[in-house]
Amino acid sequence: MSVEEDMLAKLRPSHEEEALIESTVRELVKRVTATSIAKEVTFEPVLVGSIAKGTYLKNPDIDLFLLFDPEVPREKLEEYGVRVGKEAIGGREHYAEHPYIRGDFNGLKVDVVPAYRIKDTTQKMTAVDRTPFHTEYVKEHLAPEKRDDVRLLKAFMKGIGIYSAEARVQGFSGYLCEILVIRFGGFREALEAASHWKRGVYLSMGSHEKARFDGPIVFIDPVDGNRNMASAVSLHSLSLFIVAARAYLAAPKTEFFFPKPVPLLSVDEIEDRLKGKGQVLALTLPAPDLIDDILFPQVRKFERNLTQALVQRDFNVIRSWSNVIDDRIIILHKLESFELPDAQLHRGPPVWIHDNSDDFLAKWRDNPDALSEPFIENGQWLLFIKRKHTNARELIVSNMSALDIGKDLNKYKEDVQVLGPEVPDDSQILEAISVFLDKRMPWER
Amino acid sequence: MSVEEDMLAKLRPSHEEEALIESTVRELVKRVTATSIAKEVTFEPVLVGSIAKGTYLKNPDIDLFLLFDPEVPREKLEEYGVRVGKEAIGGREHYAEHPYIRGDFNGLKVDVVPAYRIKDTTQKMTAVDRTPFHTEYVKEHLAPEKRDDVRLLKAFMKGIGIYSAEARVQGFSGYLCEILVIRFGGFREALEAASHWKRGVYLSMGSHEKARFDGPIVFIDPVDGNRNMASAVSLHSLSLFIVAARAYLAAPKTEFFFPKPVPLLSVDEIEDRLKGKGQVLALTLPAPDLIDDILFPQVRKFERNLTQALVQRDFNVIRSWSNVIDDRIIILHKLESFELPDAQLHRGPPVWIHDNSDDFLAKWRDNPDALSEPFIENGQWLLFIKRKHTNARELIVSNMSALDIGKDLNKYKEDVQVLGPEVPDDSQILEAISVFLDKRMPWER
Repeated sequence: MSVEEDMLAKLRPSHEEEALIESTVRELVKRVTATSIAKEVTFEPVLVGSIAKGTYLKNPDIDLFLLFDPEVPREKLEEYGVRVGKEAIGGREHYAEHPYIRGDFNGLKVDVVPAYRIKDTTQKMTAVDRTPFHTEYVKEHLAPEKRDDVRLLKAFMKGIGIYSAEARVQGFSGYLCEILVIRFGGFREALEAASHWKRGVYLSMGSHEKARFDGPIVFIDPVDGNRNMASAVSLHSLSLFIVAARAYLAAPKTEFFFPKPVPLLSVDEIEDRLKGKGQVLALTLPAPDLIDDILFPQVRKFERNLTQALVQRDFNVIRSWSNVIDDRIIILHKLESFELPDAQLHRGPPVWIHDNSDDFLAKWRDNPDALSEPFIENGQWLLFIKRKHTNARELIVSNMSALDIGKDLNKYKEDVQVLGPEVPDDSQILEAISVFLDKRMPWER
Repeated sequence: MSVEEDMLAKLRPSHEEEALIESTVRELVKRVTATSIAKEVTFEPVLVGSIAKGTYLKNPDIDLFLLFDPEVPREKLEEYGVRVGKEAIGGREHYAEHPYIRGDFNGLKVDVVPAYRIKDTTQKMTAVDRTPFHTEYVKEHLAPEKRDDVRLLKAFMKGIGIYSAEARVQGFSGYLCEILVIRFGGFREALEAASHWKRGVYLSMGSHEKARFDGPIVFIDPVDGNRNMASAVSLHSLSLFIVAARAYLAAPKTEFFFPKPVPLLSVDEIEDRLKGKGQVLALTLPAPDLIDDILFPQVRKFERNLTQALVQRDFNVIRSWSNVIDDRIIILHKLESFELPDAQLHRGPPVWIHDNSDDFLAKWRDNPDALSEPFIENGQWLLFIKRKHTNARELIVSNMSALDIGKDLNKYKEDVQVLGPEVPDDSQILEAISVFLDKRMPWER
């Protein structure tokens, strides 16, 4: 049995599951059309997403859209959507750009989402109005015998850690996987194509005029020529896909789909592994209750601003990393050293910019923080000054109030813990450092 | 008495010295015209330099040129020049681009230099043929009452360490000092002008078309429009002159002309001073018997190549310095630290350059020097490798054979000593480090 056949046996839903999903969808449609709102306002329940397209993996979400007439005002649409969902399945209100209801029903996860019934994607009024067009496109263009190819590609992406357009992953959406299979003809064919991609690869389904998009990969959405449906894919995700595709084609194995987890290291094991290789600055704070797409860009901004603060003050940052583990944001920086010498070379103006030179000399001559007289090199004033913070942790702690750590994170500044160079005995931070230090590819662990 | 009057009392030769110089010059001329060569070949003895121009400081050199007819072949000119000098004053043959005799006569240092008698500077045949024109220009254009201004300016340049166009100093020649006084009208006036100079200042004596010269300062030679007579002036020397001029005009004092020497530090004092500020890598080798203009560019090249070797291998060089003390070349590098971690981040190709990636992976997978698996960041292969040299001294010692340390220095490679971080108890190196660490301006010591 080939690796792919072996995998499909695991990925394909069972006949029982298929039957349960079918009956659940029928029941759901019945329920939403029976709600009190359905009696007042006309809307059309439409199944979208991977179930509608027959490309779902095990335990899929059911995505049920309620399509309203464009005449309905936006706030009414939102109100109706939420009320229909609540009445039909209970659940909880969620909000992206747009409110929707997420709940459990028959043991399956269900999203009930209001949207507008538009004629084409140029009329888009909410962020999700385009979704039914995606569903239709795939239903029309994906041959039923290629559904398993989509399952394999999605599972492959998931296995190597780049499945999802969400900010947490910055990878390939389910829809993009489907279109890749349609475009190239199958799972292996998509990998074969990817193995030749370069940064900046440009793809489309037809003879689209090349719209100007930035980004590591551009794939024009067949239902909307003005949209790059691969815009979420980071350079890292693209690179990992190229490398994984080549590695898989050379030697397929199940670990691409189901990688072994990163082994967790103890404090001693981490200290052992770091010996002579640098020291880890660990920073942690409670993760506020925000959706990933709001939270993760801020976490990464925090990471970047920390890196910048360290580098600006001469600390040598070897690598950095951030993630949210359970309810905590954890940011790690591997430094060449936690300690720097007292003396810091401080650069002043060129000697012939007299006003600035006078100010510089007035400031630094006889300044208690000056460790030398101002001197000249290559026409520029220099001197050695006392470094304000010779320890990386102290630097970050004392600069925390001045750091912009993201719109929604700034209010958690007082809860930030800055740790190191001793490895903290804290299970989530140990998990983070274990992942940070494990440089193997997911399929090679 | 003003600082300048005070200084002139020290700088101006006494009447006795003037008389001695005058009679010595007369005697010299008599001697060269009485030589056996003078009876065979016609040449004209001409006094050039600061004595001819009346701008000399105490203990001046006597520069006596022997001007030959351009018909005399070059090798004959050299032969005659050397024989005349030897017969007249003994002394020793020296060689720049050109041979000449340097000797002592009547307790004065004398150079006897053969050259061609040319009509204008475009006919120049040897490097020194232009010199008599310089002497003539100054004699014609420098008013006798401004000779003391030249003395002050030369002594000022000397005091702040930038007097001489030689490679050792890379500063202002005596002739340039004379022209500055002519151009601006006096010592104070020259300083006043310099205090407004910027990098790239362009000067000339008349309405010269702006010839294209690079360099921190351009001053067109009035006897040769195709020559920048300030070409030797380094950016550092120019900057120091600007700063010193401003400082002197604000508060004149004798220390500009006669600075206190740099205090010499002991091993303990140096160790004390370096505490928490870095460590000094000291390198020393015997200075070959070459004139400064040949030796110094090579010493500086050696210094630059060392800096580069250190920086390329991640050592943080704070500052470097080189000089020749007595018969030894000494090169110093102040490093943030002598030691680096074992692990070094090593950058490979972008993942989508497949041939290079394959080579990179083939080289580093299962390589005993790899400290991690290859991993991807921003589309590029990276891994941690074992640093070959974690100690700066070891790095330099083991790379010495591969370093290009200058045409004439390469043969001394085996005599190179590399020292540090312990401060070596070696008087010349202690002197060098004392100068290196003393960041005060000469007039502020």
